[in-house]
Amino acid sequence: MYKLTALWGSPKPEDRAAFEDHYLKIHVPLANALKNLSEVQTVVVDEGLEGAPQPFHRVAIMVWPDRAAFARDEASEAWKALRADGSGLAERFGVSLIAATGEDG
Amino acid sequence: MYKLTALWGSPKPEDRAAFEDHYLKIHVPLANALKNLSEVQTVVVDEGLEGAPQPFHRVAIMVWPDRAAFARDEASEAWKALRADGSGLAERFGVSLIAATGEDG
Repeated sequence: MYKLTALWGSPKPEDRAAFEDHYLKIHVPLANALKNLSEVQTVVVDEGLEGAPQPFHRVAIMVWPDRAAFARDEASEAWKALRADGSGLAERFGVSLIAATGEDG
Repeated sequence: MYKLTALWGSPKPEDRAAFEDHYLKIHVPLANALKNLSEVQTVVVDEGLEGAPQPFHRVAIMVWPDRAAFARDEASEAWKALRADGSGLAERFGVSLIAATGEDG
Protein backbone atom coordinates (compact mmCIF):
# COMPACT_ATOMS: atom_id res chain seq x y z
CA MET A 1 0.00 0.00 0.00
CA TYR A 2 0.99 3.62 -0.53
CA LYS A 3 0.04 6.17 2.13
CA LEU A 4 -0.14 9.90 2.58
CA THR A 5 0.22 11.23 6.13
CA ALA A 6 -1.27 14.69 6.64
CA LEU A 7 -0.69 16.66 9.85
CA TRP A 8 -3.04 19.55 10.42
CA GLY A 9 -2.47 22.50 12.72
CA SER A 10 0.05 23.21 15.41
CA PRO A 11 -1.77 22.70 17.58
CA LYS A 12 -5.26 24.08 16.89
CA PRO A 13 -7.28 25.98 14.32
CA GLU A 14 -8.40 29.44 15.45
CA ASP A 15 -12.09 28.49 15.30
CA ARG A 16 -12.09 24.80 16.05
CA ALA A 17 -15.81 24.13 15.61
CA ALA A 18 -15.92 25.80 12.19
CA PHE A 19 -12.73 24.02 11.12
CA GLU A 20 -14.14 20.66 12.18
CA ASP A 21 -17.40 21.33 10.36
CA HIS A 22 -15.66 22.19 7.09
CA TYR A 23 -13.09 19.42 7.45
CA LEU A 24 -15.61 16.65 8.03
CA LYS A 25 -18.40 17.84 5.72
CA ILE A 26 -16.35 19.19 2.80
CA HIS A 27 -12.69 18.18 2.97
CA VAL A 28 -12.94 14.47 3.82
CA PRO A 29 -15.66 13.92 1.18
CA LEU A 30 -13.34 15.58 -1.39
CA ALA A 31 -10.65 13.07 -0.39
CA ASN A 32 -13.10 10.21 -0.74
CA ALA A 33 -13.96 11.44 -4.24
CA LEU A 34 -10.50 10.39 -5.48
CA LYS A 35 -11.04 7.43 -7.79
CA ASN A 36 -8.21 5.19 -6.65
CA LEU A 37 -8.23 5.85 -2.91
CA SER A 38 -8.80 2.77 -0.74
CA GLU A 39 -9.40 4.47 2.59
CA VAL A 40 -8.98 7.61 4.70
CA GLN A 41 -8.25 7.31 8.42
CA THR A 42 -8.74 10.47 10.48
CA VAL A 43 -7.66 11.15 14.06
CA VAL A 44 -8.43 14.05 16.40
CA VAL A 45 -5.26 14.49 18.44
CA ASP A 46 -5.84 15.07 22.13
CA GLU A 47 -2.33 15.09 23.55
CA GLY A 48 1.37 14.86 22.90
CA LEU A 49 3.35 11.87 24.06
CA GLU A 50 3.77 11.55 27.84
CA GLY A 51 2.73 15.09 28.62
CA ALA A 52 4.58 16.75 25.73
CA PRO A 53 2.81 19.69 24.07
CA GLN A 54 0.25 18.62 21.46
CA PRO A 55 2.22 18.88 18.20
CA PHE A 56 -0.76 19.04 15.81
CA HIS A 57 -4.54 19.06 15.80
CA ARG A 58 -5.46 16.31 13.34
CA VAL A 59 -3.84 13.44 11.47
CA ALA A 60 -5.18 11.94 8.26
CA ILE A 61 -3.83 8.80 6.64
CA MET A 62 -4.88 8.34 3.02
CA VAL A 63 -4.36 4.85 1.61
CA TRP A 64 -3.90 3.73 -2.02
CA PRO A 65 -3.20 0.20 -3.27
CA ASP A 66 0.15 1.33 -4.71
CA ARG A 67 2.18 4.36 -5.80
CA ALA A 68 0.83 4.24 -9.36
CA ALA A 69 -2.74 4.56 -8.07
CA PHE A 70 -1.68 7.59 -6.00
CA ALA A 71 0.03 9.13 -9.04
CA ARG A 72 -3.14 8.74 -11.11
CA ASP A 73 -5.19 10.46 -8.42
CA GLU A 74 -2.57 13.18 -8.01
CA ALA A 75 -3.03 14.04 -11.72
CA SER A 76 -6.83 14.27 -11.47
CA GLU A 77 -9.30 17.14 -11.26
CA ALA A 78 -10.54 15.66 -7.97
CA TRP A 79 -7.03 16.11 -6.54
CA LYS A 80 -6.99 19.76 -7.61
CA ALA A 81 -10.31 20.28 -5.83
CA LEU A 82 -9.02 18.56 -2.69
CA ARG A 83 -5.81 20.59 -2.65
CA ALA A 84 -7.60 23.88 -3.28
CA ASP A 85 -9.93 23.14 -0.38
CA GLY A 86 -6.98 22.17 1.82
CA SER A 87 -5.13 25.41 1.05
CA GLY A 88 -8.30 27.37 1.77
CA LEU A 89 -8.73 25.56 5.09
CA ALA A 90 -5.14 26.26 6.12
CA GLU A 91 -5.45 29.94 5.25
CA ARG A 92 -8.93 30.49 6.68
CA PHE A 93 -8.20 28.86 10.04
CA GLY A 94 -4.54 29.73 10.44
CA VAL A 95 -3.39 26.11 10.56
CA SER A 96 -0.31 24.49 9.10
CA LEU A 97 -0.51 21.44 6.83
CA ILE A 98 2.46 19.10 6.53
CA ALA A 99 2.18 16.00 4.39
CA ALA A 100 4.38 13.22 3.09
CA THR A 101 3.91 9.99 1.17
CA GLY A 102 5.51 6.58 1.18
CA GLU A 103 5.17 2.83 0.99
CA ASP A 104 4.14 0.55 3.80
CA GLY A 105 7.16 -1.12 5.30
CA MET B 1 -10.18 3.34 18.12
CA TYR B 2 -7.36 5.26 19.77
CA LYS B 3 -4.21 5.93 17.76
CA LEU B 4 -0.66 7.09 18.31
CA THR B 5 1.05 8.79 15.36
CA ALA B 6 4.85 8.69 15.54
CA LEU B 7 7.01 10.72 13.14
CA TRP B 8 10.62 9.67 12.93
CA GLY B 9 13.50 11.76 11.63
CA SER B 10 13.67 15.00 9.74
CA PRO B 11 14.31 13.75 7.24
CA LYS B 12 16.76 10.85 7.64
CA PRO B 13 18.77 8.95 10.19
CA GLU B 14 22.55 9.35 9.85
CA ASP B 15 23.02 5.66 9.07
CA ARG B 16 19.83 4.68 7.36
CA ALA B 17 20.55 0.96 6.93
CA ALA B 18 21.47 0.47 10.60
CA PHE B 19 18.46 2.51 11.71
CA GLU B 20 16.14 0.43 9.55
CA ASP B 21 17.64 -2.78 10.84
CA HIS B 22 17.17 -1.81 14.49
CA TYR B 23 13.75 -0.27 13.88
CA LEU B 24 12.30 -3.30 12.10
CA LYS B 25 13.99 -6.07 14.10
CA ILE B 26 13.89 -4.56 17.60
CA HIS B 27 11.65 -1.53 17.86
CA VAL B 28 8.54 -2.72 16.00
CA PRO B 29 8.56 -6.07 17.86
CA LEU B 30 8.73 -4.13 21.15
CA ALA B 31 5.62 -2.22 20.04
CA ASN B 32 3.88 -5.46 19.13
CA ALA B 33 4.67 -6.79 22.62
CA LEU B 34 2.19 -4.32 24.14
CA LYS B 35 -0.71 -6.38 25.43
CA ASN B 36 -3.59 -4.24 24.27
CA LEU B 37 -2.29 -3.02 20.93
CA SER B 38 -4.49 -3.97 17.95
CA GLU B 39 -2.11 -3.06 15.13
CA VAL B 40 0.98 -1.11 14.06
CA GLN B 41 1.11 0.44 10.60
CA THR B 42 4.55 1.58 9.40
CA VAL B 43 5.41 3.73 6.40
CA VAL B 44 8.77 4.60 4.83
CA VAL B 45 8.34 8.17 3.59
CA ASP B 46 9.76 8.83 0.14
CA GLU B 47 8.73 12.40 -0.54
CA GLY B 48 6.97 15.50 0.70
CA LEU B 49 3.74 16.63 -0.87
CA GLU B 50 3.98 17.93 -4.44
CA GLY B 51 7.74 18.33 -4.40
CA ALA B 52 8.02 19.79 -0.88
CA PRO B 53 11.05 18.67 1.16
CA GLN B 54 10.57 15.31 2.86
CA PRO B 55 9.46 16.32 6.39
CA PHE B 56 10.30 13.02 8.12
CA HIS B 57 11.73 9.57 7.42
CA ARG B 58 9.14 7.20 8.87
CA VAL B 59 5.58 7.24 10.16
CA ALA B 60 4.12 4.67 12.55
CA ILE B 61 0.46 4.47 13.49
CA MET B 62 -0.23 2.39 16.59
CA VAL B 63 -3.84 1.38 17.10
CA TRP B 64 -5.72 0.45 20.30
CA PRO B 65 -9.40 -0.39 20.66
CA ASP B 66 -9.91 2.63 22.95
CA ARG B 67 -8.14 5.15 25.17
CA ALA B 68 -8.38 2.94 28.25
CA ALA B 69 -6.50 0.14 26.47
CA PHE B 70 -3.77 2.64 25.52
CA ALA B 71 -3.59 3.88 29.12
CA ARG B 72 -3.14 0.32 30.40
CA ASP B 73 -0.29 -0.27 27.94
CA GLU B 74 1.26 3.11 28.76
CA ALA B 75 1.54 1.96 32.41
CA SER B 76 3.23 -1.34 31.56
CA GLU B 77 6.80 -2.60 31.65
CA ALA B 78 6.53 -3.32 27.92
CA TRP B 79 5.88 0.38 27.34
CA LYS B 80 8.98 1.32 29.33
CA ALA B 81 11.04 -1.04 27.18
CA LEU B 82 9.56 0.41 23.98
CA ARG B 83 10.19 3.99 25.07
CA ALA B 84 13.74 3.27 26.24
CA ASP B 85 14.49 1.69 22.88
CA GLY B 86 12.90 4.64 21.07
CA SER B 87 14.99 7.16 23.00
CA GLY B 88 18.10 5.12 22.27
CA LEU B 89 17.23 5.02 18.56
CA ALA B 90 16.70 8.78 18.41
CA GLU B 91 20.00 9.45 20.18
CA ARG B 92 22.06 6.85 18.34
CA PHE B 93 20.95 7.89 14.87
CA GLY B 94 20.42 11.60 15.38
CA VAL B 95 16.74 11.52 14.50
CA SER B 96 13.83 13.39 16.00
CA LEU B 97 10.73 11.61 17.30
CA ILE B 98 7.43 13.47 17.51
CA ALA B 99 4.32 11.62 18.66
CA ALA B 100 0.73 12.39 19.54
CA THR B 101 -2.36 10.41 20.41
CA GLY B 102 -6.06 10.77 19.79
CA GLU B 103 -9.39 9.20 18.90
CA ASP B 104 -10.56 8.28 15.44
CA GLY B 105 -12.93 10.90 14.15
